[in-house]
Amino acid sequence: MRYDKGTKELENWLIEEERFDAESLGKCEAIFCQGNGYLGVRNALNERYVGEKRGTFVTGTFDRFHESEVTELPNFPDTTWIEIDIEGSRFSMLRGKVLEYSRIMNLKNGEMVRTTVWEDTAGHQVRFSFRRIVSMEDMNVMAERVEIQPLNRDIEIRLTSGIDGTVTNTGTQHFTEGTRRFHSGRYLGMVCKTIQSGVTAAIHTGHIFSLNGDVREPELLPIIERRAIKVRSEFQLKKNEVLTVEKMTVIHTSRDLEYEGIEISDWETFLMEKGREHIEKACAAGYDILKIESAKVWREIWEQEDIRIRSEDPFDQLAIRFAIYHLNIMVKKDDSRVGIGAKALSGEGYKGHSFWDTEIFILPYYMMTQPETARTLLEYRYKNLYGARKKALENGYEGAMYPWESAWIDDGETTPLWGAADVVTGETLKILTGIIEQHISADIAFAIWSYYQVTADESFMETCGYEMIFDTARFWADRVEWNDTEMRYEINDVIGPDEYKEHVNNNAYTNYMVHFNMELACILIQLCRREKSDIYSRLNSQMDLSALEEKLEERRRLLYLPLPEKDSGLIPQFDGFWKLKKLDLAKYKSCSVVGTIYDDYNMEQINSFQVIKQADVVLLMQLLSDRFSEEIRRKNFIYYEECTLHDSSLSKSAHCVSACELGFEEMAYQFFQGASRIDLGPAMKSSDAGIHSAAMGGIWQCVVMGFGGVRIRDGELVLNPILPDAWDNLFYRICFGKAKLEISVERETVNVKNHGSAIILQVMGRKLEIKCGDSVTVGREGTATA
Amino acid sequence: MRYDKGTKELENWLIEEERFDAESLGKCEAIFCQGNGYLGVRNALNERYVGEKRGTFVTGTFDRFHESEVTELPNFPDTTWIEIDIEGSRFSMLRGKVLEYSRIMNLKNGEMVRTTVWEDTAGHQVRFSFRRIVSMEDMNVMAERVEIQPLNRDIEIRLTSGIDGTVTNTGTQHFTEGTRRFHSGRYLGMVCKTIQSGVTAAIHTGHIFSLNGDVREPELLPIIERRAIKVRSEFQLKKNEVLTVEKMTVIHTSRDLEYEGIEISDWETFLMEKGREHIEKACAAGYDILKIESAKVWREIWEQEDIRIRSEDPFDQLAIRFAIYHLNIMVKKDDSRVGIGAKALSGEGYKGHSFWDTEIFILPYYMMTQPETARTLLEYRYKNLYGARKKALENGYEGAMYPWESAWIDDGETTPLWGAADVVTGETLKILTGIIEQHISADIAFAIWSYYQVTADESFMETCGYEMIFDTARFWADRVEWNDTEMRYEINDVIGPDEYKEHVNNNAYTNYMVHFNMELACILIQLCRREKSDIYSRLNSQMDLSALEEKLEERRRLLYLPLPEKDSGLIPQFDGFWKLKKLDLAKYKSCSVVGTIYDDYNMEQINSFQVIKQADVVLLMQLLSDRFSEEIRRKNFIYYEECTLHDSSLSKSAHCVSACELGFEEMAYQFFQGASRIDLGPAMKSSDAGIHSAAMGGIWQCVVMGFGGVRIRDGELVLNPILPDAWDNLFYRICFGKAKLEISVERETVNVKNHGSAIILQVMGRKLEIKCGDSVTVGREGTATA
Repeated sequence: MRYDKGTKELENWLIEEERFDAESLGKCEAIFCQGNGYLGVRNALNERYVGEKRGTFVTGTFDRFHESEVTELPNFPDTTWIEIDIEGSRFSMLRGKVLEYSRIMNLKNGEMVRTTVWEDTAGHQVRFSFRRIVSMEDMNVMAERVEIQPLNRDIEIRLTSGIDGTVTNTGTQHFTEGTRRFHSGRYLGMVCKTIQSGVTAAIHTGHIFSLNGDVREPELLPIIERRAIKVRSEFQLKKNEVLTVEKMTVIHTSRDLEYEGIEISDWETFLMEKGREHIEKACAAGYDILKIESAKVWREIWEQEDIRIRSEDPFDQLAIRFAIYHLNIMVKKDDSRVGIGAKALSGEGYKGHSFWDTEIFILPYYMMTQPETARTLLEYRYKNLYGARKKALENGYEGAMYPWESAWIDDGETTPLWGAADVVTGETLKILTGIIEQHISADIAFAIWSYYQVTADESFMETCGYEMIFDTARFWADRVEWNDTEMRYEINDVIGPDEYKEHVNNNAYTNYMVHFNMELACILIQLCRREKSDIYSRLNSQMDLSALEEKLEERRRLLYLPLPEKDSGLIPQFDGFWKLKKLDLAKYKSCSVVGTIYDDYNMEQINSFQVIKQADVVLLMQLLSDRFSEEIRRKNFIYYEECTLHDSSLSKSAHCVSACELGFEEMAYQFFQGASRIDLGPAMKSSDAGIHSAAMGGIWQCVVMGFGGVRIRDGELVLNPILPDAWDNLFYRICFGKAKLEISVERETVNVKNHGSAIILQVMGRKLEIKCGDSVTVGREGTATA
Repeated sequence: MRYDKGTKELENWLIEEERFDAESLGKCEAIFCQGNGYLGVRNALNERYVGEKRGTFVTGTFDRFHESEVTELPNFPDTTWIEIDIEGSRFSMLRGKVLEYSRIMNLKNGEMVRTTVWEDTAGHQVRFSFRRIVSMEDMNVMAERVEIQPLNRDIEIRLTSGIDGTVTNTGTQHFTEGTRRFHSGRYLGMVCKTIQSGVTAAIHTGHIFSLNGDVREPELLPIIERRAIKVRSEFQLKKNEVLTVEKMTVIHTSRDLEYEGIEISDWETFLMEKGREHIEKACAAGYDILKIESAKVWREIWEQEDIRIRSEDPFDQLAIRFAIYHLNIMVKKDDSRVGIGAKALSGEGYKGHSFWDTEIFILPYYMMTQPETARTLLEYRYKNLYGARKKALENGYEGAMYPWESAWIDDGETTPLWGAADVVTGETLKILTGIIEQHISADIAFAIWSYYQVTADESFMETCGYEMIFDTARFWADRVEWNDTEMRYEINDVIGPDEYKEHVNNNAYTNYMVHFNMELACILIQLCRREKSDIYSRLNSQMDLSALEEKLEERRRLLYLPLPEKDSGLIPQFDGFWKLKKLDLAKYKSCSVVGTIYDDYNMEQINSFQVIKQADVVLLMQLLSDRFSEEIRRKNFIYYEECTLHDSSLSKSAHCVSACELGFEEMAYQFFQGASRIDLGPAMKSSDAGIHSAAMGGIWQCVVMGFGGVRIRDGELVLNPILPDAWDNLFYRICFGKAKLEISVERETVNVKNHGSAIILQVMGRKLEIKCGDSVTVGREGTATA
């Protein structure tokens, strides 16, 4: 991989795969994933290779194959494949010789371009260029453009292309074979249906051919095979002639239109026709027009969102753009029926399910750049109250117990029950997170409050926020357990953020976050009673707020919160943490592959060591930093980081932000470098199942909340930027309330421009008001100049 | 492909793939398919290639993925894959250099051996040998043996192997993900279940490692992934050392044991344990022992069944052995719950369904060599009466209307409704055979009668045969339509054997066979009334035999049978055949790929030409030869053959047998050569979906019923052998009644030895009695010497 390919206006915008590596196909399939929040398309090559994992996903089309499995995001019929036969032999870079090769993802305009010169075993040299976009302008559309040019001899070419419905989710088929149809002999349509959830999907594709730039209409042999519809065409190319094939795809589902309130009795017929109309339109436009339209949307995004880092290492600049690129293709900004998958729409990993990753790691980005998208995501959680209440009920609790993994809004828990193998016993391991990793309900309450602090979106609070905060608190009030010996409430038998510890009691992160959730609910119940009688009476009729307040008040007060120990200042991650054995972690910490400790120890053994997967106490002290003095936070950071393997993509960015807050800027920079290499880095297998969507939010947090120093303290924006040695300048933009700020951090100064409503904020410890259009520069010592 | 590899005792027993051809993987996967009638395993290579179609099938485990599809034979989790990493790079013959290559299927002992010397891109040369058997001795077992030897440098090897449950039937998944378990850290088990039919399947595998012949027990890293369970091991090999890995697989299903009358409440636990015990046993035995045990069974089969042809072209000898090999792995000889699939157990083609292929093309082989297997197959049709009656009822008829395609015995029609694309309109074509190709019900009656003629198996007739013949006749009596103008019964709107003609009236083949069926039923009703009062009264209570007889008698008598036309002596294949246009067929006849006419014409156009897919009138005159004079048969043969494209694998063998009967021996030999190259020949794609099981029966019919001259006339065995010029001698064996005959045909004489009960037969027109132990030689002019 090469990260410094771009020059001039493309400097730090391009990621290049310089060499074709058939053993690491998943890397570029995932990190070069294209999409628009509705569609996500892995960047599989057009020709097929063993080990590839082709993937086309449409947000929120979950399906469950069988009652023994959980619902997951189905892999759609594939249109990215094109078979090219040169002189009767199939084009594959594994055969013959690859004389030139380059695959470039352009983050600026969202286009992938692969160029290769290939010589077949008989000596025919052919230049290929393959381009692909997924349209940001028209969510249903993707387009490819393939150019083929024989360089040293005339050649005969046969192209076979169409729609391949044999793709599965690693062997699990979610679609019926469906109906396949040729429209006017030119366009290919397939309409199929998910087998359990009944989402009808229409995939249409069409081809445009040209020779040396002149449109051709070759004879197309129609082929219908099992789960596939194709056309085949043949061409005689003279040396140096250029054959161009554009392949357009449009995908529609019944889910899109149900969303628009359209009711249809015969989806199959309706979508077959709708797809036909749309593919005609896309083919009439052609690749270049579709690309220009899509690139225009990208330009607007970058104009609003680009972050600029002047660093000794230009990779830093590329990394933040990479994160912003993925953050802009992972969510359909107006669809609150679905959350963000842990792998977004870039792979089958985690089955498209949403975790706390969204609220704690990704949401800050949206809150401060696209508050309406943040609201959509929180509305999803509001809709998912149905599933959360279902889960609570099933577990014998009141209130809203959010699923650890969720998919459809009305699903309860969707975490699979069985996972990988135990290296010691060889038994399949039970996945406990869906049962006992419970902090997510408090995390969601925390995220709502953060969102409100940033946006002051009263309407969201009134329609959704209060109810969610009250109902999660209600769950916790019921969940906590009374310890008669200690005369306190406890939360036992959980998993905290550190998933290398199962069945722990009083996980500090969980207990503190629960305390926060219950306390917040009390305050807001009082506020609603005082100031929002409509809301109060609606929610009161639902959950008896007085009784709830009383219960919350008592339990919150008596909830055990592990305090810093006298001498060390350390908070135990959970009861008994200090008794666990220490383990030399050097071997695992130096390894670029995560989870290698499992090669040596099983879960039972790992449970017995002071070894931590990811930020736990460290994260707690970051989220609720006002509860702990800086000294305590520093001591805990140092202690726990030593025990932490950072085996979760959520860990390094959290450590980076904390390190920035605590003034460990060099360490912070190391964590940033690690966090920004989770997908982009040298590990060629770690993104196979998809990019790490939380890591994208994490990279943004490192830059903006870490080095950019953005914090919220008592509802107020605080900026305490800190630059690592390698950086000269950091420029970023955030929204806060109705203020729109551009912040430029230099080594000695911080400049803040406001393009929105006036705001009072703290910059480098100095309180300022910045009005619309104003620009203020604050020196590191606190001097300010307008 | 090379067919003359074998020498000495292996002469004409070996088929070799001399050169690895990644574009024709299906060829050897299918023709080198191994099995034992219970298991069928395509000969996919251990390492994976794009375009491969791995397949492991267990007879009769049909499942339907979704109500929109038909039931099919599911592709089982795969254990034939082994991933080999040499110095960190995956072994694939597409990379590096293949310095030597040979893959040989040994028909004599059923073993596949592949040897290759491969040089990776870094210059490491490695010799591999891969061996595989599917045990004929223990139906649940298959075994592999892989040897790896570095030739020029020390190497590090990593092996990953286990059970892969991600395989599908072209994208359709029939199994649940199931339970996966490591047993004692050594054996891998997966128990899954078909999703609709609920067949529980247990797949177990185990590995045995040795270095230079000494057993090693390397550390095995257990891996559980989605739908997969694997182990990984690593080895350091010095130059010239030999690492051997034996991989055993056992497969059990709940269907096997239900068959044995075992009832189990918890199949999963039971089969997991049963498989564990069995895999332990198989691993304890090791590859060599398993191979020897299996080869012993093959030896016994060949001792009983080998046919010897002394031909100028040794391929002829190989071809008949190839056919007998496949005929012995395509059916579980004692399982009457399932028929023979059109592709046997060698591929997904035709979904494992049984057609008339079994009765008309394959059954003669079993009748005359393994009558108990023939009985099993007919018993399947008896059990399938349930489905046949269901189909009749659904179509508004009485009696038994056999499904054109059948799977489970209680299924009715399982022909899919939609097929390939129309080249002209691009629409998906409706498959009409399941609706209007009806002759199969008469074909089955014909086969029962043939079986009885050969075996005199009264017990079968009493328990099954009479009922089937009566009930098919009952269907026909209801099916025929009265034509008031012509004052006759007709059978309109059918497809005959020639599937290039749809919706025809009075297809000669159909009408004559129906007439035969009805006439036979009348005769047998009378016989039962006279001689088998128990049977009569049982069946009479079921279907009122007197009324049936009367109806049959009337309809048979008035059924329209197209007679030879006065001048030409030709019988019209169906009403209006003479009015169809003639088409120059040279282009299609000379093409080695079948069905190319579809590239130029659609079905509607093909319907309008005198172009025939396969033997229709010709086949009729062969099956019911006593109804037509030799002259009429000859005239029709010549006329119809000219119009026939032989685009069905059922055509050339039928033409060969007829040509032999009619004295066209050179033409017969050409047809034999064609028939024997349907799977073995140069077309590299035609067997992709599996071998043509009817063609295997067809090759046998060419040799034994064609050149060997075996006919049954009025219940008597008639031998009229005829040798093509290329042949000096033909030696074959058949059973007839309780006689066991060895027949040796020389150019001038025919020698018949009898190892069974005495028989009266005709040889070269001369009637003889041959007692047990006797040997008679008859000269071509009719002289006989004992």
